[in-house]
Amino acid sequence: MTGPGGAPTARLLLTGDELLRGFIQDANSGFIAARLRDLGIELDSIRIVGDDYAAIEHELRLARDIDGVDLVVVTGGLGPTHDDRTSEAVATALGVALELREDALEVVESRVRAYGRMRTPEEVATFTPGNRKQATIPVGATWVDPLGTAPGYVVAAANERAVAVLPGPPAELRHAWSGIEASSQLLALQARVGERHERLVRLWGIPESRGSQVLVDLGHEDSPERRVTICARDGELEVAVRGSDVAAVDTLVEALCSSFDDAVFAVDDHRAVVDLVGELLRDRGWTLAFAESCTGGLLGAMVTELAGSSEWFLGSAVTYSNAAKVALVGVAEATLEAHGAVSEATAREMARGARVAFGADVAIAVTGIAGPGGGTPDKPVGTVHVAIATPEGEQHLPLRMPGNRAIVRRRSCAIALHALRRELSRPT
Amino acid sequence: MTGPGGAPTARLLLTGDELLRGFIQDANSGFIAARLRDLGIELDSIRIVGDDYAAIEHELRLARDIDGVDLVVVTGGLGPTHDDRTSEAVATALGVALELREDALEVVESRVRAYGRMRTPEEVATFTPGNRKQATIPVGATWVDPLGTAPGYVVAAANERAVAVLPGPPAELRHAWSGIEASSQLLALQARVGERHERLVRLWGIPESRGSQVLVDLGHEDSPERRVTICARDGELEVAVRGSDVAAVDTLVEALCSSFDDAVFAVDDHRAVVDLVGELLRDRGWTLAFAESCTGGLLGAMVTELAGSSEWFLGSAVTYSNAAKVALVGVAEATLEAHGAVSEATAREMARGARVAFGADVAIAVTGIAGPGGGTPDKPVGTVHVAIATPEGEQHLPLRMPGNRAIVRRRSCAIALHALRRELSRPT
Repeated sequence: MTGPGGAPTARLLLTGDELLRGFIQDANSGFIAARLRDLGIELDSIRIVGDDYAAIEHELRLARDIDGVDLVVVTGGLGPTHDDRTSEAVATALGVALELREDALEVVESRVRAYGRMRTPEEVATFTPGNRKQATIPVGATWVDPLGTAPGYVVAAANERAVAVLPGPPAELRHAWSGIEASSQLLALQARVGERHERLVRLWGIPESRGSQVLVDLGHEDSPERRVTICARDGELEVAVRGSDVAAVDTLVEALCSSFDDAVFAVDDHRAVVDLVGELLRDRGWTLAFAESCTGGLLGAMVTELAGSSEWFLGSAVTYSNAAKVALVGVAEATLEAHGAVSEATAREMARGARVAFGADVAIAVTGIAGPGGGTPDKPVGTVHVAIATPEGEQHLPLRMPGNRAIVRRRSCAIALHALRRELSRPT
Repeated sequence: MTGPGGAPTARLLLTGDELLRGFIQDANSGFIAARLRDLGIELDSIRIVGDDYAAIEHELRLARDIDGVDLVVVTGGLGPTHDDRTSEAVATALGVALELREDALEVVESRVRAYGRMRTPEEVATFTPGNRKQATIPVGATWVDPLGTAPGYVVAAANERAVAVLPGPPAELRHAWSGIEASSQLLALQARVGERHERLVRLWGIPESRGSQVLVDLGHEDSPERRVTICARDGELEVAVRGSDVAAVDTLVEALCSSFDDAVFAVDDHRAVVDLVGELLRDRGWTLAFAESCTGGLLGAMVTELAGSSEWFLGSAVTYSNAAKVALVGVAEATLEAHGAVSEATAREMARGARVAFGADVAIAVTGIAGPGGGTPDKPVGTVHVAIATPEGEQHLPLRMPGNRAIVRRRSCAIALHALRRELSRPT
């Protein structure tokens, strides 16, 4: 139960009936897993249980009793209502008392007053006893400034272990985590991360089976000195190499880079492709616009997730109907009649039209059949045309991909962005 | 470990290093949890482990040995590479042999040939031994037609139990699940679901604390006869009431509907708000368009997730820059100068302009400051203006919301769609 090079090990416990009943999809485990990885802490497993005191306490005792779990991260159950009992379970499992922390209560109450502006006095009044509970945490815990009304905290346990407790709502959890990460308990854990080396090679357009085969061909075998994880995601393949033997890790990374050659698009760089595209555009002083049909705004939404994208992103004409393709980006009616909305000709005219409509240097157009309906023998579901227009010329990608509506849409965006990245990466 | 009314109980085991290392966020647990809920099967917990044979087998044995786990659903590890060992772990834990199923192999190979058109012969050749492995499953298992190359299957275990095994990629998993659900093993389990009653009340604009308080005021206490789950999600509050006592469940649902009155927007209806809006638009024969600024295409993406939305959705002008607001939806430069891009006046002009540009009956405009930058004392981060223009008039919502960039964007979309739903629900 110890990671490569004797890394500290963590376990993650998510709580909430809503997760077990499918009302919401867990959106936190990936964030915490990635943060722990960056700190050099291995995650041994994730458990999700309901708002069930006995189950939470059981899992906490279990983690405490297992040799090698250095950190338990618990999320959820810090709300003001009677079924929010995570702090009680943590205190019981660790054998410490709970105490009302006046300093925390003050902050919680100030948060309630701030929210109060948007709520009725009756609603605010129902908060008070619940808020005292939210400020009641295990003795010796370090609490962190909350985004909402639930302070997260970290508390030391026997044998240099720690339990970190975070509120469940994703934004509150992310806010609290930055405080937890800076706590003395987490810093002590990070100090135990030994000689550690991790590299990341990111590939575009390589299937997972080929990635595995190349590792076999290179004679790689997992060991604590050098271990490889491969992960495929929307056409990207990420190969992480880590371990205690720095030279062995670096040698494999170099060999992978030679083997995959120009399929490698990033080394030791975790940024999303949108971010890489933004940097390339900024370097040239170019602006970007889209004309979207089957992706329906998804490309625009992906780009504008990135704070600061307004520096180079002007907008997207989501032309779902044919009339909109004519009105907003000037596709000729004759083109639509002769070739249809899903065609090379329409895609090219959409891209050219978006450059003009937005006054952009570069435009990408995507038009296709995402399904489930709308397919024909000639143009089955998964037929997508991508066009890219730049000051230097035009490019067209005819695509036919497997998968359902969501996959076709997401994959179309990834392909379009990677095609643009490749285009912008060419030496000028 | 038995659900209300003696419902069968399931456990979910997700496998994959990529989940523990934060390369991808689990996107499957919510789907399976919701499907199990709909079938009347209780989920007791979810466990996520790596591509680790020992950990997978350990969890499977554990579930087998716990009294009351009737179904174990396992995902991931059905790929062609050597570290995909889920089938081996299932067979060992259940004490049955593995066998190559020729009928499954035939289907897997036909899938590989279909994919092969997009791959080199060398790549396809590397698949062959792996594909034999994919078609090698526990004796007695019922396999289901795969979307990709990994057949999912379900196998009966001792004491009327079953283990269902699904591929990890979300689309393949969803495809396989529909086959699993129709299998004799799952039908037998569903036959054991007793007298069962579940109702759902969905509220808009009610905080979770108020929902809990109303339940307390109504004298509700959880019991096997009647149990309540409350879940908040992007401003919606879902109150699920279930149990063996049909009359008691119905009485509480009626009381909730009276208490919350016109905050209730759906009863026993699971469809997303986008779907409800689509139905209301179809009823009137109206079309819809958007003008988006801070949401950057997210509204369009949400609407077009829905297959068939092209019936009533024409498109979205994502006007991220000021120049695009002028060029695409005709906002007056004077308005931008006098009031700024984030203002009631600009929002109203964007909505009117989108109606004209798309020739739509109804248009929604959203403009705001999503952060983290761009806020001022006058217009802090979280300031958002929503305008709705219909053939019958205009509406404007000035918003100021807490939270980070992602929350402000998502919440803005939810508020806009619910405002439109409410507008369209008024008697004509």
